[in-house]
This record gives sequence, structure tokens and C-alpha cells, in this order.
Amino acid sequence: MEKPLVGIVMGSDSDFPVMKEAAGVLKEFGVGFEVSVISAHRTPDKALEYARKAEERGIKVIIAGAGKAAHLPGVLAALTVLPVIGVPIKSSTLDGLDSLLSIVQMPPGIPVAAVAIDGAKNAGLLALQILGGTDPSLREKMKEYRRKMAEKVEEKDKKIKEEVKKL
Amino acid sequence: MEKPLVGIVMGSDSDFPVMKEAAGVLKEFGVGFEVSVISAHRTPDKALEYARKAEERGIKVIIAGAGKAAHLPGVLAALTVLPVIGVPIKSSTLDGLDSLLSIVQMPPGIPVAAVAIDGAKNAGLLALQILGGTDPSLREKMKEYRRKMAEKVEEKDKKIKEEVKKL
Amino acid sequence: MEKPLVGIVMGSDSDFPVMKEAAGVLKEFGVGFEVSVISAHRTPDKALEYARKAEERGIKVIIAGAGKAAHLPGVLAALTVLPVIGVPIKSSTLDGLDSLLSIVQMPPGIPVAAVAIDGAKNAGLLALQILGGTDPSLREKMKEYRRKMAEKVEEKDKKIKEEVKKL
Amino acid sequence: MEKPLVGIVMGSDSDFPVMKEAAGVLKEFGVGFEVSVISAHRTPDKALEYARKAEERGIKVIIAGAGKAAHLPGVLAALTVLPVIGVPIKSSTLDGLDSLLSIVQMPPGIPVAAVAIDGAKNAGLLALQILGGTDPSLREKMKEYRRKMAEKVEEKDKKIKEEVKKL
Amino acid sequence: MEKPLVGIVMGSDSDFPVMKEAAGVLKEFGVGFEVSVISAHRTPDKALEYARKAEERGIKVIIAGAGKAAHLPGVLAALTVLPVIGVPIKSSTLDGLDSLLSIVQMPPGIPVAAVAIDGAKNAGLLALQILGGTDPSLREKMKEYRRKMAEKVEEKDKKIKEEVKKL
Amino acid sequence: MEKPLVGIVMGSDSDFPVMKEAAGVLKEFGVGFEVSVISAHRTPDKALEYARKAEERGIKVIIAGAGKAAHLPGVLAALTVLPVIGVPIKSSTLDGLDSLLSIVQMPPGIPVAAVAIDGAKNAGLLALQILGGTDPSLREKMKEYRRKMAEKVEEKDKKIKEEVKKL
Amino acid sequence: MEKPLVGIVMGSDSDFPVMKEAAGVLKEFGVGFEVSVISAHRTPDKALEYARKAEERGIKVIIAGAGKAAHLPGVLAALTVLPVIGVPIKSSTLDGLDSLLSIVQMPPGIPVAAVAIDGAKNAGLLALQILGGTDPSLREKMKEYRRKMAEKVEEKDKKIKEEVKKL
Amino acid sequence: MEKPLVGIVMGSDSDFPVMKEAAGVLKEFGVGFEVSVISAHRTPDKALEYARKAEERGIKVIIAGAGKAAHLPGVLAALTVLPVIGVPIKSSTLDGLDSLLSIVQMPPGIPVAAVAIDGAKNAGLLALQILGGTDPSLREKMKEYRRKMAEKVEEKDKKIKEEVKKL
Repeated sequence: MEKPLVGIVMGSDSDFPVMKEAAGVLKEFGVGFEVSVISAHRTPDKALEYARKAEERGIKVIIAGAGKAAHLPGVLAALTVLPVIGVPIKSSTLDGLDSLLSIVQMPPGIPVAAVAIDGAKNAGLLALQILGGTDPSLREKMKEYRRKMAEKVEEKDKKIKEEVKKL
Repeated sequence: MEKPLVGIVMGSDSDFPVMKEAAGVLKEFGVGFEVSVISAHRTPDKALEYARKAEERGIKVIIAGAGKAAHLPGVLAALTVLPVIGVPIKSSTLDGLDSLLSIVQMPPGIPVAAVAIDGAKNAGLLALQILGGTDPSLREKMKEYRRKMAEKVEEKDKKIKEEVKKL
Repeated sequence: MEKPLVGIVMGSDSDFPVMKEAAGVLKEFGVGFEVSVISAHRTPDKALEYARKAEERGIKVIIAGAGKAAHLPGVLAALTVLPVIGVPIKSSTLDGLDSLLSIVQMPPGIPVAAVAIDGAKNAGLLALQILGGTDPSLREKMKEYRRKMAEKVEEKDKKIKEEVKKL
Repeated sequence: MEKPLVGIVMGSDSDFPVMKEAAGVLKEFGVGFEVSVISAHRTPDKALEYARKAEERGIKVIIAGAGKAAHLPGVLAALTVLPVIGVPIKSSTLDGLDSLLSIVQMPPGIPVAAVAIDGAKNAGLLALQILGGTDPSLREKMKEYRRKMAEKVEEKDKKIKEEVKKL
Repeated sequence: MEKPLVGIVMGSDSDFPVMKEAAGVLKEFGVGFEVSVISAHRTPDKALEYARKAEERGIKVIIAGAGKAAHLPGVLAALTVLPVIGVPIKSSTLDGLDSLLSIVQMPPGIPVAAVAIDGAKNAGLLALQILGGTDPSLREKMKEYRRKMAEKVEEKDKKIKEEVKKL
Repeated sequence: MEKPLVGIVMGSDSDFPVMKEAAGVLKEFGVGFEVSVISAHRTPDKALEYARKAEERGIKVIIAGAGKAAHLPGVLAALTVLPVIGVPIKSSTLDGLDSLLSIVQMPPGIPVAAVAIDGAKNAGLLALQILGGTDPSLREKMKEYRRKMAEKVEEKDKKIKEEVKKL
Repeated sequence: MEKPLVGIVMGSDSDFPVMKEAAGVLKEFGVGFEVSVISAHRTPDKALEYARKAEERGIKVIIAGAGKAAHLPGVLAALTVLPVIGVPIKSSTLDGLDSLLSIVQMPPGIPVAAVAIDGAKNAGLLALQILGGTDPSLREKMKEYRRKMAEKVEEKDKKIKEEVKKL
Repeated sequence: MEKPLVGIVMGSDSDFPVMKEAAGVLKEFGVGFEVSVISAHRTPDKALEYARKAEERGIKVIIAGAGKAAHLPGVLAALTVLPVIGVPIKSSTLDGLDSLLSIVQMPPGIPVAAVAIDGAKNAGLLALQILGGTDPSLREKMKEYRRKMAEKVEEKDKKIKEEVKKL
């Protein structure tokens, strides 16, 4: 496997079904990544150590997913100058609004880049766009990825147009 | 001054006009306290050290106020087994809802005792009620405090009844 | 069974599947507790009597769970100087936001310590942390509990790392 | 003054500027009322006594205004079979949403009739409509009141039409 | 059947599973009622006629349930001086918040008495409390109803206490 | 003045400062309009008559603004097949969310075209775009209007670029 | 098939189960329409081309449905002077509130006519009411449509009255 | 001035008081930037051209601020593979919630990195952290910036401790 450039972290293994979409796009683009379960509240020391050593271990971007009072992205961001992308995970109540506000409303000084609730795929794509600053081949791959995405929309457009004829 | 039993912490000095109400009730009850400005995001090391050493320094209850993505109470709670009371501070947007959800929606394992938005006075009273478990005199003072509070309501009741006569 | 130190109260027996998690952690720590169904609205007299006599019966902390216009924690808190922990129960509409606001937004003078929506486990843990003020052995047990919790996160971290290899 | 048929209760004298609108319409209709400041949390005994004795004192409808975790209307409603109208008072945060949900989301068994946030005038009018069931003259006065209200809208319509000409 | 004193109206037959709880309590108390499906938007003329003639037909209270942009209670209230109780029905989106605000936030002049989202049972009880102003026997029945309700809570309390023993 | 093609209606004269922006754009485009203050709740008969006669009087589009439980647009829409544009007016509480939901969440069968909270200008522009279906000159004027709007943005772009130089 | 007068556009084929209700009413009224899947984000060029050419291709009204950060209606509206009706699609989180606000809160200058969350049927009806400005026969059909709708409500009224008898 | 690496774009010049904080931090770090007023709705062509040419012009990161139905960041992101940071601007209603959801809830495929409502300073800092991937000196400057930020918190801590003594 590629040397990990992206660190995917989540507060609980129950977040994995959402967060693995971030891993999926990184894999598709051939970018190395690592996945960790680290809780800002239950394993605070591990969270601190992870954030503090990520840069020297060669990580370029951190993606952190968490739910409810989702402190993980902010806690990591406070201890590294790497870009941290936060993924608000929808939990059993409040439909993810708590997770979103806990992640996006960071006070001035320590930014977190928030994506949509359960938006782990976009977190992976955003990491790739950030890495594109140093690896131009990723930008070209992203353009190709978007072309394919547009083609899929075109195919769906045709499919729906067929369905409409049957109405 | 009394040896501090309650540690009042806030993320920014701009939170002081709200948080000083907690200090006010502690002073009124003659309970020692200390006040600190510590940011979970801007001074994470200080936050960790504070939480880790609070118990051995003789602190019995921590009151932490913070706004927006208010991680301070949860970050402290993760590193101490002392009870942590969280005060959501209303910030310039969202009317404090972000602060409230960031504080109250703690995931299972690490509790924070949340009070109302800008509810620092109640945070102080709650700390006193917790301390009442070891110091019965505080319970008696609290009963007296409530009697006076009830008297004030009675006085206001009379005042309003006078105003109504003039309608 | 141990002499009850914690009174767990809920507005309806339908709240029990949530509230029993509070009982579970107290049992795990060997702390005596009692469980009651008392409605602030349907059995107001029982609520008053419970709150008024809890202290003299030896109760040290009250945990009260309720849904919708969740008045139970506040009604109890108004009649005792014991710390009252409120658990907002998610009901069939509004995802628990009504319960949360009815519990946490207590006016100045009478505090309730709110935990997360359906956060009964944390209510139990918070009660234990409060009792830790008089019983230092509970603090040590809590530290051990947290160590185990951290170990479980570590195990999940390993498990997920294995799953990631298969992606 | 007329014998009071309507009891107007509020949790704090700071609610009076809103609640006096209820008194205003009752006065305008010549219906006796009384005004009290009673806090469900700070003067719980007074609240209980008020609710329990209201019926025998000849009160026919209770109007209760409260803010934040607004328990007053529900607490009164639990102890009387008189109709209780709840007025959610807008407080310094959350724009009255907390007050509204704490009042309107009453669990099955004990109803409160909620009006709009700060809607004390409508609370007064609703009380009059309820009293109209026993006093038909109130219904006639209400019809007259509505006719005048419609006339005022007509006058405003004319005024705006004049303003529009000047645009 | 008894002569109808309460008119239960709903915007759609899909509201009936909720609204029949209002009918249930009226039946239990032996109070006559009628049930109608009338849409403020799809059958506006019928709505107007219903509101205008309700009083002369002997109706004393109207209960109106509606969902989404729930105009029915307000539209009826504008055309009758009878008390109108509004039941916000939870629809497929927004969890009933739209229905609640459309019903409870009535502008000054025309009140609607709002109950909880899907709170039809309380609407029925509130109607009975209003009718209690003219029929004292209903007040006595209501007190008996509440005694039974309290007994049921007591039974549930016992049941839960048994369950707790098995934990 | 031109024969009115657009009927601007508002629930209260206090809505005029917002609603006159709709009048302003219609005037700017030389399209005749009329302005009325009609309350769905305080002058229901006038509302019905207005909606019923609008089409035969030559009105082509209705713009209705209202606040709080904003029923006016829906009430008018139920009684005319003309397109009705609803403008949610921000009131003193809830920041216009109540007005928005009361207007936009119309049940199937009777549509209202909602614009932004306090979005009366866009209501006027939407009316013009609807009228453009029969009057092609309005479409050309709208294109010109947009060109000028784009020019203003360009000017502001230049102005800000100058300001930035001074930073 | 009729020459398309209405362009129904949706951001994803997963929106079709909702959006086909718009197609259904247009078909029922015999008005030509076309259906396209175009994403403002994944196929931006197609979106632009669609909006720019719609008018010259004879389209009179555009109906655009989209979910989450629902930019499609606004993006199309920025590039055509045809009326654009926006349908907020409920997605997996936030119950459609994000879609609604992203569509309805358009800034001054470029209006979108928003209907209810998942309100595609009303979007179709609104398009028909707009087309009624040039085709009076559509207005007559709409009146007939409403008569039938009212009849269905009457039938449901009878059905419920029968059900009530069995209670 | 430095060659611009960051493009700051805003939908209206009224957003400048917020957005200039992004410019401020970039200036402080000596990183070149450019500022533009471009509206996704009023100047769509300019928006498209800007997004399409940004990469070849040497821009590395785009910061886009917008209010209400804030489409600008998403519209730009759809047309470039550069990272786009979105700043939700608080507007006159809904306290910025509309802006936030319109920006953060991007559908899968096209990410936007959202920061807090009015969080332009953090947008600037996030851009610097992204640029740190290619320019290690920026990382060192950021560490220094954070040290100073921590020092300021320490100073405030001292100041508040002095104020507390005077209580």
C-alpha cells in the first residue's frame, strides 16, 4: 500500500459505514491513507498524540468524523497545522444538526473544514483537491473523475427520459 | 480568600460578563473559587494540564463556559473525574444553540452537566448543591437562599398587584 | 441491595428502556439506587413528596428523565437542594429538542444538570462523579472504568484497521 | 372592580410588559381578573396553592405566562381542572422557541392551551371566548370587538392606498 | 347519541388516526360531538359555512387538526367567537414543526388554543375543561379521570420497580 | 396609472415597509398594480371577496405578504386560480421561520409560490416574469434589468478592489 | 406528445419518485412537458445551456427539484427570465430544511418560486396556473380540477362520519 | 504585492466587512491574494469564468463568502478542482442558518470546505494551512501565529484574574 498521506480518524467504530466512503475515493485515486478509531473524549491522550505526530509522520491532511457533541475534528485541529476536514456524523437524535454545529462553528484561530452531514465521500474528494496542490496528477485525475460523474448524470438523464415516456 | 473548591474556566475573556455570575454566587456562599481563561483550541496544553491537575489541587467541581463549537467543557471532562458543569455562551450567531448542542450532546462515557444558555448563575448554584454532599452547611445556606429568592418573588407579586390597580 | 444513594425517576414507564442505562452504570459501580415512575403532571403530589423527602431519606443525587414538555427535573429541583440531573427523552416528534429545551433552559435560581438527549448512561456516570466527592473509592473506580473504555476504543481501532485492509 | 374570573399569573415581574396585554383586553370587556407573580421554580408552594384553590375562589380560566423552561402553565394545569392558557414569553436567547415548546408540548392527560410567543393579548381574548360559554353577552361583545378590528384594517387599507399614490 | 357540543374538524381523512383520540375522550365523558373532514384550502366554502353556523347549531367548542401549512384552525377561528383548539398534525417532513408554528403563532386579535403536535387527546380534554364552565359534572368527572390516571402511573411505578429488581 | 395587473395584498399596514419593494419594481417596469391591506383573520370576508373577484377584475398575479401564522397567501390561493406569490414577513419572534413555513408548506392541491423572508422585491420580479408569458416586452425589460444589475455588481467589484489596496 | 411548455429538471434520478408528481398533473391537464436530470454541481455546463436555451425552445415555465444544498433552481433562474419553480427534496438528513432554505432564501434580484418540501404536485399545479395567463382553457380546467378535489374531500368526510359511528 | 495564490470572492460588497478578515490574515502571513465581488445569481457568467480560469491564473485556493441561499461557493466548486472554502454570511434573517446549510450540505461529488458563520478569519487560516502543503515556511509561521495566540489567551487569563480579585 501507498505511504499514507491522509489520516482518516473517527470517534467510534459505528462511524465506519459512513467514513469508509472517504477511504473509498482515496483508494480509487491511488492515494495512501490510514484509518484510526480515536475518541476525543474516551481516548484523549491518543487523540493528542495523533494530532501532534501526524505532520512528522508524513500525513498531509486529516479527515475526522464524529457525531453528537463532535469535538474530535476541533481537538485534532488545535494540535496540528495540517488541514483538518470534519465530517459531522448523523446520530440517533437531532438528525446530525448537533454534529454539524459542533464541527463547523469553530471559534476564530483554529479552523476546521466542514463537509455535509455524513459527507465522508466529499471529505475524501476535498483531501484529494488539497493534495492536488503538490501533486498535479491528482488534479488531472479529479478532472477525469468529474467527467465520469457527468457521464453518469447523462446516463441517468436518458434513463429517466425513457421512464417518463411510459408515464 | 478561601481555598478554591470550584474552578471556573472560560474559553475567552469575552465570556467573563456572563461567567462572573457563577463567581458571584460562590462568593455569596463563601465558597473558594478560582477563575481562568483557557481555550480548548488556542491553549490546548493548558486545558489538558488544568483538567489533569485539578483534582490533586483540591478542586471539587469545574465550571466551564464556552461559545460556538464549545468544546472546552467536554475536553476538560475527558481528562478528569471531577464533575464538570458546562455553560453554553450565546455568541453572535445562532443564539447559543450551537454552544448548547456542543456542550450537552456529549457521547456516552464522558458526561458534562449542562445548564441554560448564559446560565452561569445556575452553574454556580449547581456547584454549591454538589458541594453540599460533603458540606451540609451549604445545604442549609441554599435553603436560606431559596427562602430569600421566594421572598423577592412575593415582593414582586405585591409590586405588580399595585401596578395593576393603576391600569 | 445497597442503601439507595441515587433516585432515578421517570415520567412514564415508556422511558424505562432509556433510563435503565443509568441504573446499569450505578449497579456496575456498586452504588445503591431506587427507580420510580412519577409524573410531574399526572401525579404532581407524588412528585412533590418525593422531592421534599429525598434528602432526609438519604438520597444524594436525583436523576430525572422526561420527554416532550419535560417538567419533571425542574419540578423536583424546585423542591430539593440535592443535585438533580435531567435526561431529555426523545419522543415521537421533534427528535427530543422539546425535551432538551424544557430541561436545560431552567431560569436563574433553580439549576438542573442536563445531559444529552436519551443520555441516561451519562446521567448515571455524572451521579457517580458527584458521589465521588464524598466517596473517593468511586473516583478510583471511575478512573478504572475510563481505562477500560479506552481499551475498548483501542480494540475497535484494531478491528477497523483489519476491515480497512480488506477494502 | 369585578370579582375576578380570570387569574393572570406570570413567572417573573419582567414578564409584566407582555402579560399586561391580557389584562388590557379583560378590562376592556369588563371582566374581572387578578394578576399574580408566582414562579413554578422559586415559589413552588405558592404555585400549588394557587392552582388548588383557584376553582373554589371562583376563577374560571387561568392565564399563565413564562419564559425559557416555562413550566408554570403545566404545573398549574396539573393541579386544577380549570382551563389553563399558556403564554410563552420570549427570553434573551432562542427567541422564545424554548418557552413555546416547554408550554405547548404537554404530554397526554394534562392539556395547556398555548398561544403565540408573547401572545398575551390573544390569551385574554381566548379567556373571553371560553367565558362566553356561560355569559352570552361576552360573545356579543366579542363580535362587536371584531367588527371594530375589521374597521381598523379598513382604515389602514385606505391609509396605505394613499401612501401608494405618492410612490 | 348526545347532541354535539364539540365539533371535531380535520383537514384530511389521513389525520383521523390522530384526531380520533379527541373523539375517544369526549365519548368516554359522555359529551356529544361530531366529526368532519373540511379542508381550509380544498373546501374553503365548507370551512366558512361550518365556522359561521357552528354557534347557532349549538356547538360550544371546535377542535381543528391540520398538518403542514396548517391554516384550518385559524381560518375557522376567524369566523366564529367559539373557542377553537388547534391540533398540529405531524406530516412527512419537518416533524410537525411547520404545523405547530402555523397554528400557534396566530397574530393578535384571533386566538387559537394550540396543543402539542399530534396532541388530539389533550385537545379533547381541554374541550371538556372548557365545557366544565357550564357543566360542573364534567369537572367532577375530570377529577375522577385524573385520579384514575394517577393510579395507572402508580401501577406502572410498581411494575418498573419489579423489573428493576431483575436487572 | 396603468390598469392593475398585479394585486399586492398584506395582512397589516406594518408589512408595508417590506411590501413596498414589490410595488417599486412593478412601477419601475411600468406594470399596473394595486395595494390592499386585508387580513385573513381580521377581515376574512374581504379576503374571500378579493380572491374571488381578482380574476374578473383583470388581476393576473397576486402577491400576498404576511407574518407569524401567515395564512393570507394560502387563504387567497384557495379561492382563485391566479398564481399567488407569498412573501413571509419577519415578525418580532422566530426570525420569520414561522411565516416561511406557514406559507411554503402548502398541502397538495393549492400551491403558493413562496419567496424569501422579507423578499418582496423578488415577489415583484417573479410577478413580472410570470406576466412575461403574455407580454414579451417584459421579458426584454427583465433582461435589461439584469444587465444593469450585473453592471452594478461590476462597479462594486471595482470599488472593493480599491478598498483592498488600502488594507 | 404535446410540444413541451414546462421543463421539469431534477438534480438526481433519485429525485424522480417525488418529481414525477409534477409530470403527473401536467399530463392530466394535457400540457406538454419534458423531464431532464441535470446537476448544478456535477453537470454545470448542461445546467447553463439548459437555462440559456429554454426560452427559445418554447419552454414557458421551469420546475427544478433538488436536495441538500439545493442550488439547481437558483442556478437556472440566474440564466433565464422564465419563471422557475423550486421543489426542495427531502434528503437523508435535516428533513428537507436544508433544501428548503437553499431554494427559498434567494437574494434580491433573482427570484425562485418555492413550493413545499417534496411538493412536486403543487409545482405542477403552479406551472399550470402560470400558463393559465396565456391559455384561458387551463384556468377552466383548474376550476374543474378543484371542484373534483372538493368532491373527494366531501367523500372522505362521509367516510369518516361512518367510521365515527362505529367508535 | 505578491502574486495572488488565494482568490477571495464574495457575493455582494456588503459581505466585505466580514470577508476582509480573510484578507487580513493572508496579508499578515505575506501570502498574495485578490478580492472580487462576483454574484452566482447576478453575474453568473463572471462566476463561471472566474472558476474556470482560476487554476491557470495560478490561484491555489478559493475562499467564497455568501449569504442567504448561498450558492456562490458551490457554483465555483463545480467548475474548478481547486479547494473552495465557503464562508456562510449571516444575513438579516435566520441568523446565518440558511447560509450555512446552503454551503455545507453539498451533495456527493463536489465538496466545499465550510467554516463557521461569518468565519472569514478561519477561512484565511485554513487557506494558509492548505498552502502549507507546498510552502513549509507557512507551516512554521502558523506555529508561530498559534504561539502568539496562546500568549494572548495567557494575558487575558491574567487580566481576568486581576478583575476577579476586585469582585
